[in-house]
Amino acid sequence: MSVQKTLQQICDIVGGTLLGDPDCPIVSVASIDEAEKGQISFLANRKYARLLPQTRASAVIVPPELEVPAEINALVHENPSMAFVKVTALFSPPLSTARNGISEKACIGESVRLGKDVGIEDYVVIAEGASIGDRTHLFPFVYVGKDTQIGSDCVLYPNVTVREGTIIGDRVIIHSGTVIGADGFGYIPVDGRHVKIPQTGIVCIEDDVEIGANATIDRARFGRTVIGRGTKIDNLVMVAHNVKVGENSIIIAQVGISGSTEIGRDVILAGQAGLVGHIKIGDGARVTAQAGVTKNVPPGAIVGGTPARPLDQERKAVAATYRIPQLLREVEELRQKVRALEERLP
Amino acid sequence: MSVQKTLQQICDIVGGTLLGDPDCPIVSVASIDEAEKGQISFLANRKYARLLPQTRASAVIVPPELEVPAEINALVHENPSMAFVKVTALFSPPLSTARNGISEKACIGESVRLGKDVGIEDYVVIAEGASIGDRTHLFPFVYVGKDTQIGSDCVLYPNVTVREGTIIGDRVIIHSGTVIGADGFGYIPVDGRHVKIPQTGIVCIEDDVEIGANATIDRARFGRTVIGRGTKIDNLVMVAHNVKVGENSIIIAQVGISGSTEIGRDVILAGQAGLVGHIKIGDGARVTAQAGVTKNVPPGAIVGGTPARPLDQERKAVAATYRIPQLLREVEELRQKVRALEERLP
Amino acid sequence: MSVQKTLQQICDIVGGTLLGDPDCPIVSVASIDEAEKGQISFLANRKYARLLPQTRASAVIVPPELEVPAEINALVHENPSMAFVKVTALFSPPLSTARNGISEKACIGESVRLGKDVGIEDYVVIAEGASIGDRTHLFPFVYVGKDTQIGSDCVLYPNVTVREGTIIGDRVIIHSGTVIGADGFGYIPVDGRHVKIPQTGIVCIEDDVEIGANATIDRARFGRTVIGRGTKIDNLVMVAHNVKVGENSIIIAQVGISGSTEIGRDVILAGQAGLVGHIKIGDGARVTAQAGVTKNVPPGAIVGGTPARPLDQERKAVAATYRIPQLLREVEELRQKVRALEERLP
Repeated sequence: MSVQKTLQQICDIVGGTLLGDPDCPIVSVASIDEAEKGQISFLANRKYARLLPQTRASAVIVPPELEVPAEINALVHENPSMAFVKVTALFSPPLSTARNGISEKACIGESVRLGKDVGIEDYVVIAEGASIGDRTHLFPFVYVGKDTQIGSDCVLYPNVTVREGTIIGDRVIIHSGTVIGADGFGYIPVDGRHVKIPQTGIVCIEDDVEIGANATIDRARFGRTVIGRGTKIDNLVMVAHNVKVGENSIIIAQVGISGSTEIGRDVILAGQAGLVGHIKIGDGARVTAQAGVTKNVPPGAIVGGTPARPLDQERKAVAATYRIPQLLREVEELRQKVRALEERLP
Repeated sequence: MSVQKTLQQICDIVGGTLLGDPDCPIVSVASIDEAEKGQISFLANRKYARLLPQTRASAVIVPPELEVPAEINALVHENPSMAFVKVTALFSPPLSTARNGISEKACIGESVRLGKDVGIEDYVVIAEGASIGDRTHLFPFVYVGKDTQIGSDCVLYPNVTVREGTIIGDRVIIHSGTVIGADGFGYIPVDGRHVKIPQTGIVCIEDDVEIGANATIDRARFGRTVIGRGTKIDNLVMVAHNVKVGENSIIIAQVGISGSTEIGRDVILAGQAGLVGHIKIGDGARVTAQAGVTKNVPPGAIVGGTPARPLDQERKAVAATYRIPQLLREVEELRQKVRALEERLP
Repeated sequence: MSVQKTLQQICDIVGGTLLGDPDCPIVSVASIDEAEKGQISFLANRKYARLLPQTRASAVIVPPELEVPAEINALVHENPSMAFVKVTALFSPPLSTARNGISEKACIGESVRLGKDVGIEDYVVIAEGASIGDRTHLFPFVYVGKDTQIGSDCVLYPNVTVREGTIIGDRVIIHSGTVIGADGFGYIPVDGRHVKIPQTGIVCIEDDVEIGANATIDRARFGRTVIGRGTKIDNLVMVAHNVKVGENSIIIAQVGISGSTEIGRDVILAGQAGLVGHIKIGDGARVTAQAGVTKNVPPGAIVGGTPARPLDQERKAVAATYRIPQLLREVEELRQKVRALEERLP
């Protein structure tokens, strides 16, 4: 399934000037600090030039006028970031099917609009009034609800459910088993029973979002649940009704976000963290793994623990718990000394 | 997708006496303390009359003989709870499909019994011996196993799996991706390997239960796993084999309940809480988010933390950890003072 | 759904010498300490003979030359472990369908190889180049990706997704909703956006693995994600890209394992535990429920808490937090006494 290219082949495709071995084989991409042999990386600007001599990458895309050690293969490019994005695409595996077009075994409802070059595989169901953008690919057992809009160049893997009225942008990837637009969890107690609050809102997923496998993004009670442009969500994440997630945030596996909470842009929520409802996580904030967040987090803050507090406080408090047994002994010792002093005084 | 009605239209449907503006537009329902403009709420009895003047609801259903402030639109009704349930139904969205009846693209096994006015959509599979009650609706890619019984007025959303022998009551809602009746997790160590214990029991889901998306309710090893009448379960919840959940309990997202644990009625398990096996959670108890419950919880108790303890103890213990650094300094200071005293004594 | 046999019938099938009541009814199996009336258990060797008099099992398979109390029904067998495995199979429920063979409503791609006596149910999709071993059974809505290899005697329950290039051994059971081979979660920050790292590796699941419902096992970024022979994984577990799990390990519900972490053999990860990436968990180690593991765990160690530490330390630290309020009082008391002493000295 993997692709191999020489550095020269890559240079021919993305442009730039090659320094070093043109026959150097490249099989994948990685960040400059994580790259191994066979991988190509990039340096966006001179600020990080110090990382260059230590990299184990087989080649690095660099900006002009950077001093490149002789032993490092490099591609000098006016825009290393853009060149790297193109290179990344070279190593992306093709979709796992050769079947193009629209399967006769798909069920497509009335007044469904299909874009150009869509891939609709066997046993896809698209309910009436839905629209599917150009080149979007739906794998088997994908369900698209009534009036749902899916943009261009999206991929929905097998067994994805997108309920009615959802709006999905362009270049969105949704992995298998994920459910978009299930009812939010809301009840009103009436005479000791739980009466369901109608969930009449929708889910809106903006461009360039990727959502992992078996995640759930619930529809809004009223209004919209929103996943902002460029945000990436890992497997088994729970996003409750009316949550708003800003742009370019990262939400790692098994995180749970309760209803109406707002996550800013460039936020990182690490694995298994849980957030209560109706709070705000500021832009650029970070929540560490398994944290339980019970109140607002200011922009740029890093919080951890349950209930979550600034990470340095949390770490000190946890470290301090190790010292309690010793502390207990010391206090007992002091008590005895004080008693001895009291007895010696007249 | 949303519905709008005037207060007069609502009054015409549910009855009662209208006080205030009959043209007042209503678009949804909410509890009295959470309601916003455009929403209708209710007051079940006079005990909560103090909440009435502060509500932001556009209208409130109230019992007779309650003093209603002049600026509040009200519907005076003999039974506000029942009237409110009816109003809630008015604002419930219709199922997202216009396709009624039984799709020719569904696979229905031998001796399957189908009730009146069922909706069996494309690509539903119902194995032999199963029965589906009146007006129950199965969305695409729903699998109903052999001899499974599903009651009346149920909705199973796309990609739901209900394994063989399951018993589901009336008015049950199961959201997409949820799996009912997968094998319980049980093995016996034999010569260093794990030999599977046959899971020959079933799952029984009583009337009026709702289960969120991508949850899992495992079948019993022997006997039954039971979800009691009126209980509501959120997304990604794990209920292990032989668990019994009582009536009208609330289990929030990502909770995990281990094998053979018994949950009482009117219990609330908050998000990401985990419960070990073979314990009992008493009626009306509450477990806070992310708690790890390792032993029985008495009726009405509130527990939190890992291992879970009464919430006030847990809160004090967590708060106390903040004071340890200060405590360490104080003990050091005392030690120096005691040493000084010791030296000053002859 | 349950089976009942007499002890004599069991003896006729697995061999051995019957002591006690040949008509004793047996309905299931259990371990010697958990067995109840109606269940049969086993004693692998004489070392555990002390457990025999206390068991509530209706019968026990024992090795020769063991003294069996007169009131216990026994089956004396040269190899109790092997006999017990055979007995367990007697009580295993048959697959929930009578439909054998290959459904006309399955979609089977080009050059797919199907073994003997496979069961391919309605609405299964097998993409081109895949192979399915002898007697393997695929339930409805199972998706098998391009070039995926599945061994013999496997069962994939409804709505399972196995993406392209996956390798699955023999006797593997995968429960409903589980997703094998979704893309690993990996991005490189480029100009403030997250650029997807191609995930070109595969997942390899060895013989005798069982995976619960709605779990996710991500494909490797490069190379393989591996689940070792005989390992059992519960519902809603997340295994990230490039994780390696050894043989005969047990991973309980809702555990999350981050990228590239290595789990040894005979490891137990209890429910809701979370492991960071790039660490090693030694053979035979145990991680307790809800633990957050941030560094390597040596072979045989038992760790708990967040961040995880040896379980005895963790327990002492948690217990110590209960004593902090008392400690605060004692230190205050000491301070007053010291002040009094200071004042009494000249």
